[in-house]
Amino acid sequence: MSYRIGMDVGGTNVVIGLFGADGKLLRRSKTRTVKTSSHELLRQLADLCKEIIDAEQVPEQLLSAVGIGLPGFIAKETGLVNAANLPFTDIPVAERLRELLGVPVTVENDVKMIVYGESLRGAGQGYSHILGVTLGTGMASAWVTEGRLHGGAGGLAGEIGHVAYSDIPYMCGCGMKGCLETVVSASGIVRQARDGLEAGWVGLLADRFPPAKREELTSRDVWQAYREGDAFAGQVFQKTAYWLSRVLIPSVALLSPDVMIIGGGVAAAGAVFFEPLRKYVSESLHPLYRERLLIVPPSLGDDSGLYGSAEYAAKQLAAQ
Amino acid sequence: MSYRIGMDVGGTNVVIGLFGADGKLLRRSKTRTVKTSSHELLRQLADLCKEIIDAEQVPEQLLSAVGIGLPGFIAKETGLVNAANLPFTDIPVAERLRELLGVPVTVENDVKMIVYGESLRGAGQGYSHILGVTLGTGMASAWVTEGRLHGGAGGLAGEIGHVAYSDIPYMCGCGMKGCLETVVSASGIVRQARDGLEAGWVGLLADRFPPAKREELTSRDVWQAYREGDAFAGQVFQKTAYWLSRVLIPSVALLSPDVMIIGGGVAAAGAVFFEPLRKYVSESLHPLYRERLLIVPPSLGDDSGLYGSAEYAAKQLAAQ
Repeated sequence: MSYRIGMDVGGTNVVIGLFGADGKLLRRSKTRTVKTSSHELLRQLADLCKEIIDAEQVPEQLLSAVGIGLPGFIAKETGLVNAANLPFTDIPVAERLRELLGVPVTVENDVKMIVYGESLRGAGQGYSHILGVTLGTGMASAWVTEGRLHGGAGGLAGEIGHVAYSDIPYMCGCGMKGCLETVVSASGIVRQARDGLEAGWVGLLADRFPPAKREELTSRDVWQAYREGDAFAGQVFQKTAYWLSRVLIPSVALLSPDVMIIGGGVAAAGAVFFEPLRKYVSESLHPLYRERLLIVPPSLGDDSGLYGSAEYAAKQLAAQ
Repeated sequence: MSYRIGMDVGGTNVVIGLFGADGKLLRRSKTRTVKTSSHELLRQLADLCKEIIDAEQVPEQLLSAVGIGLPGFIAKETGLVNAANLPFTDIPVAERLRELLGVPVTVENDVKMIVYGESLRGAGQGYSHILGVTLGTGMASAWVTEGRLHGGAGGLAGEIGHVAYSDIPYMCGCGMKGCLETVVSASGIVRQARDGLEAGWVGLLADRFPPAKREELTSRDVWQAYREGDAFAGQVFQKTAYWLSRVLIPSVALLSPDVMIIGGGVAAAGAVFFEPLRKYVSESLHPLYRERLLIVPPSLGDDSGLYGSAEYAAKQLAAQ
């Protein structure tokens, strides 16, 4: 019996899970991310691994692999990690952790690990072709086909948040104008709501967020206002669904996914987001695709990335 | 030494090629397609196979596989073929030909076989991730990643010609309004040129095609007029490139192809089409993709589909 660990290392929290060889999640925990230096963060990750196997009384030699998902770019050839919200700039994270832990370590982009986890154990289970999109601070996609996670040239596949549309008026942090991510993301929801309030929306959101308080507005507030009946707040989610449909429609025709899994904070809004999304995607697609269209939320909650990174590490190990 | 045959069966011609085990094209020929009945077309295809191996004095027992590409839909489970421009309605083409020839036969969509051929022996050679698009009577794509031809759910991947855009005003044969194929195709070029002439364009095209002759206009005439200096004709190709870029841009971000191969009659127009296409795709993409963007014409000419179908048949045989 061998064990593996999956970790989702975010800018705020590290979530870690210990899995049995059968893929069952045995234990999980969540800790604030140490961001003082790359050295200290690596130390924290190694300590968390040791703690979780100790807590389950798993002998160290039975730990076979550790998988990590993090919000950054991992250079395919060198393994160097760059992550804007973590203290990693050109750090060979997998190599360093392997030294600290004495077991094989894989490091991949967090969105890829979330979608990979969902494809194997979540909403994608039983399907062959899975397109996943996460809408959080940013927006990105991952594609899993017949069990293989697609990387693409340079490992760059999935940056759909940086597709620019001429009728999106906002500047993106990447330097381009009109990136999808500027509207289809948590910050995009806020941006749309603030713009609406500036333009004179009335209702719950307007009452709660007068100009002086508008800086505090979050995407959760927009959702809360919608739930309490604010029509303008509902429109923000519909508009966001419309923008997302723009990139999903060609994706369906290009790849014919069995299922599209849309996750992250924005997608948690539920029907107010998914219903218009299904409608918009459906009405611009050939009937062949329309009939089998399946757009669903993830089913593993916050644990998708744990499952994904643990399974990915185990698979990489098996392939060696 | 074993041999294989590749065939590209179109609504007008059947092109057939005999290949050595090393993948070298030994002989090719082109014949008008027999369209009187499925039975007679199958008979023709079998006869063409026999003729080409006889002509090269290859003993029948050394023919190992026959691959066919045709403009139609091949049901994955049943192998039934439906092709609007061929006398095939629910015909198990592979099975019938296997009976006639006594060797394994594969049948796939012609665009997939063209792109597969280009990926292995043409403009995609040496690359891992290849997106191919053909612009002929219609418009479709195929995706080859690490040597695998992607089929997608129901084998339906690649119908990018039927992605609808609200600002494309034309009705498509499929019943939808605004399909990309209504503008990005040979008939789309003609449609745009006719509309322009109706709207009062002056110049070579207008002189050559007064209202009474407009029904005779072909995409080749538009190209010819462009070559001779007709600015409006040039605009048609630029506009077509713009429309095509709309679906290529999200495709790049989604998949990160090493190379995009754009073929078919329209793409044969060359720089007047490829230069604006590269510009439009580039300017809406994140710099990460922009730097490595490679959009090229095919390099095997009319033989892409022969190479593709012969190699595909050989690969399917090897996998059994």
